[in-house]
Amino acid sequence: MNFCSHCGAPVRFAIPMDDDRPRYLCDNCGTIHYQNPRIVAGSLPIMADRVLLCRRAITPREGYWTLPAGFMENGETTREAAIRETREEACAEIEVGGLYTLVDLPHINQVYMIYLARLAPQREPAFAAGPESLEVRLFSEAEIPWASLAFSTVTLTLEHFFADRRHDGLAGDRALADYPLHDGVIRRW
Amino acid sequence: MNFCSHCGAPVRFAIPMDDDRPRYLCDNCGTIHYQNPRIVAGSLPIMADRVLLCRRAITPREGYWTLPAGFMENGETTREAAIRETREEACAEIEVGGLYTLVDLPHINQVYMIYLARLAPQREPAFAAGPESLEVRLFSEAEIPWASLAFSTVTLTLEHFFADRRHDGLAGDRALADYPLHDGVIRRW
Repeated sequence: MNFCSHCGAPVRFAIPMDDDRPRYLCDNCGTIHYQNPRIVAGSLPIMADRVLLCRRAITPREGYWTLPAGFMENGETTREAAIRETREEACAEIEVGGLYTLVDLPHINQVYMIYLARLAPQREPAFAAGPESLEVRLFSEAEIPWASLAFSTVTLTLEHFFADRRHDGLAGDRALADYPLHDGVIRRW
Repeated sequence: MNFCSHCGAPVRFAIPMDDDRPRYLCDNCGTIHYQNPRIVAGSLPIMADRVLLCRRAITPREGYWTLPAGFMENGETTREAAIRETREEACAEIEVGGLYTLVDLPHINQVYMIYLARLAPQREPAFAAGPESLEVRLFSEAEIPWASLAFSTVTLTLEHFFADRRHDGLAGDRALADYPLHDGVIRRW
């Protein structure tokens, strides 16, 4: 940030009075420009014993596999953001369950929120590559491309999911609402 | 937003190519200025059968009672934000449990995240009014000033907590980690 978005004057980076950390300050109009973490919302879409992943068509991590997720927009809820991202990246409609992983990424000022979801069964085809995906497909646990996952948040979410499923044993058809929330902090790239 | 914070030129509000919603665009340097929801993080500090509330010394809702909470900062985790806000507003140190309420407020572009917490027992005095509070005190359920709570998110969080406690019966000493997550959407002021 170089200029005040309100009045156009140059800003300086300093600690405001009655504050304890530096902000971008405009001496011309007095605006303090706060900067805050952003939420990345998405889903873990499941269908029977398989999960839906998208191969990224865009940077960063182009060509690697991810869960459908992206920056939450103003005016929407976290669930609406997860539904929209899943529609955009995987052309898939989902029934959303509870929040499944909540991951703080303080080094990049992001909070990841992944909702567990079921692919809506009535649509055919149930999914396809959106403009930001090269390919979208279902993976059983044995098929997960662990070495080709795009982000550590995706790895963490899938590890929790298959551990929760193993805990269920062969019965394995837990209701979406009965999965626990897993939270964590990742401080590396 | 009137001016580009990168180059200082005037911005216009229009839908960028390959996008589906209007953003602030700079035709001079090409920057697209995205705006995203902010996280309000805080705690519900409990001590035996009482909860800690702060009476606000600042607008909005000056004079009304709230849970210690505020905008999450860059570089911190949601739990760290909850601890910091509780320290700033109530001069209290807490042991943080799980995420307890997650409330989407899409009309004001906020996501509320309240962690259940215990007041650390070893400090004396355990709490005091910080600069943004007029008064800080513990309330039993019967003492809660329901008509003088500052925000609907606070009301919702307290209603869930006392309902969960009633469900426990007289035993009433559930571990912090055993309380469920409650989520919701509030679309009004």
